[in-house]
Amino acid sequence: MSFCHLFRIEINMIISSLISTYFQPSTNDKEFEKWIATALSAVLDFLENRDGFKIHSDKSPSEISKIFNSSKIPNKGESIARVLNETIENIIKNSVRVSNPYFIGHMTGATPNFLLICDIIISALNQNVVKIETALSATYVEWQTLCWLHRLIYDRSENFYSKVLQNSDTAIGNCCSGGTVGNITALVAARNKAFPNIHKKGIYLSYQKEKCKRAVVIVSERGHYSIKKACAIMGIGEENVISVPCHLFTNKINLSELKKIIKKLTVEKVKIIAIIGIAAGTETGNVDDLSSLAKICKDNNIWFHVDAAWGGALLLSKTHKKIVKGIKNADSVVIDGHKFLYLTLSHSSVLFKNKNSLDTIRHTANYIIRDGSVDLGRTTLEGSRRFDSLKLWFTLKVLGQEGYDLLIKNAIKNAFLLAKLASEHPSFEVTSQPETSIITYRYIPKELKMRMVLAKKIHVTENKKFLAELKNHSFGKKEDFIRVTKKVNSALNKINTNLQKEQRKNGKSFISRTTLQTVWKSQEIVVLRAVPFHPLTNNETLAEILREQEELGNKLFAKIRKRIMNEEAQAIRFFSDFLI
Amino acid sequence: MSFCHLFRIEINMIISSLISTYFQPSTNDKEFEKWIATALSAVLDFLENRDGFKIHSDKSPSEISKIFNSSKIPNKGESIARVLNETIENIIKNSVRVSNPYFIGHMTGATPNFLLICDIIISALNQNVVKIETALSATYVEWQTLCWLHRLIYDRSENFYSKVLQNSDTAIGNCCSGGTVGNITALVAARNKAFPNIHKKGIYLSYQKEKCKRAVVIVSERGHYSIKKACAIMGIGEENVISVPCHLFTNKINLSELKKIIKKLTVEKVKIIAIIGIAAGTETGNVDDLSSLAKICKDNNIWFHVDAAWGGALLLSKTHKKIVKGIKNADSVVIDGHKFLYLTLSHSSVLFKNKNSLDTIRHTANYIIRDGSVDLGRTTLEGSRRFDSLKLWFTLKVLGQEGYDLLIKNAIKNAFLLAKLASEHPSFEVTSQPETSIITYRYIPKELKMRMVLAKKIHVTENKKFLAELKNHSFGKKEDFIRVTKKVNSALNKINTNLQKEQRKNGKSFISRTTLQTVWKSQEIVVLRAVPFHPLTNNETLAEILREQEELGNKLFAKIRKRIMNEEAQAIRFFSDFLI
Repeated sequence: MSFCHLFRIEINMIISSLISTYFQPSTNDKEFEKWIATALSAVLDFLENRDGFKIHSDKSPSEISKIFNSSKIPNKGESIARVLNETIENIIKNSVRVSNPYFIGHMTGATPNFLLICDIIISALNQNVVKIETALSATYVEWQTLCWLHRLIYDRSENFYSKVLQNSDTAIGNCCSGGTVGNITALVAARNKAFPNIHKKGIYLSYQKEKCKRAVVIVSERGHYSIKKACAIMGIGEENVISVPCHLFTNKINLSELKKIIKKLTVEKVKIIAIIGIAAGTETGNVDDLSSLAKICKDNNIWFHVDAAWGGALLLSKTHKKIVKGIKNADSVVIDGHKFLYLTLSHSSVLFKNKNSLDTIRHTANYIIRDGSVDLGRTTLEGSRRFDSLKLWFTLKVLGQEGYDLLIKNAIKNAFLLAKLASEHPSFEVTSQPETSIITYRYIPKELKMRMVLAKKIHVTENKKFLAELKNHSFGKKEDFIRVTKKVNSALNKINTNLQKEQRKNGKSFISRTTLQTVWKSQEIVVLRAVPFHPLTNNETLAEILREQEELGNKLFAKIRKRIMNEEAQAIRFFSDFLI
Repeated sequence: MSFCHLFRIEINMIISSLISTYFQPSTNDKEFEKWIATALSAVLDFLENRDGFKIHSDKSPSEISKIFNSSKIPNKGESIARVLNETIENIIKNSVRVSNPYFIGHMTGATPNFLLICDIIISALNQNVVKIETALSATYVEWQTLCWLHRLIYDRSENFYSKVLQNSDTAIGNCCSGGTVGNITALVAARNKAFPNIHKKGIYLSYQKEKCKRAVVIVSERGHYSIKKACAIMGIGEENVISVPCHLFTNKINLSELKKIIKKLTVEKVKIIAIIGIAAGTETGNVDDLSSLAKICKDNNIWFHVDAAWGGALLLSKTHKKIVKGIKNADSVVIDGHKFLYLTLSHSSVLFKNKNSLDTIRHTANYIIRDGSVDLGRTTLEGSRRFDSLKLWFTLKVLGQEGYDLLIKNAIKNAFLLAKLASEHPSFEVTSQPETSIITYRYIPKELKMRMVLAKKIHVTENKKFLAELKNHSFGKKEDFIRVTKKVNSALNKINTNLQKEQRKNGKSFISRTTLQTVWKSQEIVVLRAVPFHPLTNNETLAEILREQEELGNKLFAKIRKRIMNEEAQAIRFFSDFLI
């Protein structure tokens, strides 16, 4: 044996024994305690902004991408201290402060600090809830959280739940990693109910057997993109997601349009697999009229699914649960924990009114999830899963329904507050009324705000007298004026897009943006979208965010105005000149 | 205003301010530090077995279920101290010690302790990797881990990866919550390639357009149950998962049977969406001949998917990567982090050879994952996701490929060691040969072991001379003898089932069980299934587990033997009497 070979063995033994220590629980290991302390202190520095506060890093995405551009797995290992240091410098410091009160841009955000305890426990125990053999108490904790949510929605009898809790043959829902998986699960159950044996036979044979040439899912135009995704995956096809128009000002599904669509589809012998109620729309936070939807579904014998990924939380608020009235008549409901229930990623649940709805999704395997067991994996789309339900269990215990009520009330109050601030502000226009804790608005230069109000009126009115009166004004023919206004809107779209980007770059606060079809039907309007549900976001935070936006908007507006030959700039000049 | 009302407001304010503190990062809060310390110490007590060692709790599932039987969300909150205490007493103490070296029952288990650091960071940062606006560095870390795994499998050029890393239009794979989601993603991509526009049009129209009446997915009978689940969800139908027999002793797909099936399906004009190679089977850990499968797929222009949820890790071992030779010719591959890569739940990846494979799954939404962005959510089945890729990134950095090589070598060595111990033991029979780190065997009383060897020979032989020679022995006609042997097998099935249950109850160690069709084709045989991949599981651990099993088996055997009138007991007596 060569010296080299011997040396190699020795190295192997050293590495091997080093690696072995990584698999010891290591309480008494001072090193281990040190790493944990270092990690904790680094994340707290970050969260408490002690490292020079920025919501988004100063580094650009492309600069950051260069840090992680080696495509090859390192051959040799490094010390934990070194990798941890790299993690702090390159990853933590270039993360987004989503839990900051000035981050009001997405549904990811505020989470109570005690969830860190839960994640430590979840990670250390590493229970796999697919099966009771790898998750004993965890199985029952998850089961209990499902019962809690089910009762919150459906309010069945004590007796119903005591039977469910003891019976391995029934399942009232699944925990899952997110709302998309929940929506897919619900739609699969709906599809399987509409077509018996489709689970085994597949879509083609099942449709043929039922003499069905087309089957669809109906949802309002505010439906989450995951609905289309789900239908594409499930073989229904994106084009078979029928989009129903919404009322312009409420963003709620237009029920008479829906009824017309149902009638038309029925005449055409198209099978309606499910109608989906939105609670709430991710863009504007508005909630469909669930009671009426439930009645329409019942009358037409159609599965009623409610995507309450965001709004399901309202059920915990005595004051606001009326917003989702009618949800208890849904056949299935999705509620995300990691959104308005303030949990860390990831946690979602899908619940079913009928305890047999999941029967067509039941699966077993020999070595795992045996028939007749209480294994949670029997009815889940996913297989191995993390014990994420501990987070919901723990938080519901600590906050209680009363605590959640306060959080939700405050979140909704914030949205109304921002709506008030924006609508009363000379330089903003509210583009959707808040209902849950989401609101959209846009920057509009103060010179144009009142003119835009009038322009909207001109745009939508059919009142000839009103138009005749206006004719004396300087804006000329209605059609020409509308054309000009659209150019102004294009300019405003650019300003708001850039405003949102600049605000992100400034790093003091963050708000998202989206596009909406408002009164300018054929024209998409870029709007700023706020989700001010953080409990520490308040009047002052919101006012400050608006102040920054006004300043950014004014600068961007001034820039555009200066361009003499630019069509949009000309339109703006014309627009700001017309008399009101 | 009534006194009561006033009081109510005050309570609300107190709760409200209490809740607000939960949303502070709270570094300086001594309370917060105390909770973290309590939680850490509780999980370490549990992991280090300082609380009276039991792999499974002494409490039965039904006892534990009673702790969690209240179906109503608590109205009032409790203190964190109290809920944490309840978590420790009721949840932690009744959890399964999956990371103990004596837990060799499932693919969930050993994880390096430093992952706790990662989970603390992941939880505290709470980045949502669906979108770069909520995950800056996290987006690139995940992207890098996907490149690492892709290069490990496909070994494309440096140039290929540098282009991929800079280009938002390409995607070479997704991180996902588990192997099932990965398998669904791969099969959706395969289906969408086989039927253009199926994503939009759905299965029914697409099949019709292609004049296809049936489309199938092919996998060996050792395929994971998630394949059927995937096909049911996707509208292909469980019955369109064609199961190919395996070789009896190797548990690998029978290639000549496969070729016959392909030929038959082609004649019948059945479309084959994909052939799935198993690497490795979850029950016996064996790996299909991937090179030959790849060639068959190429010759027939069929998508080749490899389910390497467990075995993908072998690519990290210089010694053992040959087991998965041919994987680089797969169109798609699933590798789970939370299995043989030793990560905590949950982490999985699906990789695609061709950087355009995910194009048909691309989706966008206005407020999120805009077209042209680098948002990871563009091609994932899931929406919001946790930053779980940090765990793989961190672990690959700390261990390096060399470290993983050692872990994997040791894990496979353990399986061979257990196979040796069991086969040389008078009271065990090995039922599948290890190849990765999974092995199955069963208890068989020493009086019967050699007789069972002979019985198997009698069962399978067509050698008349051999049978004639045996005729002089005491067992009578072959058919009668086989009938008796099957009864003996039934008795052994019961013994092994109960042995596994008793061992779990004893709580000193844990092994799983499954049923296999071995040489007794029409009879399912209950076998013990070990996954001894824990780095601290060794010769001594394995020998001790066998000792306990022998003892339990002997007791159970003695009990059955005593039953005079019982048919199985009679068969055993007859069987133990025949001469060998």
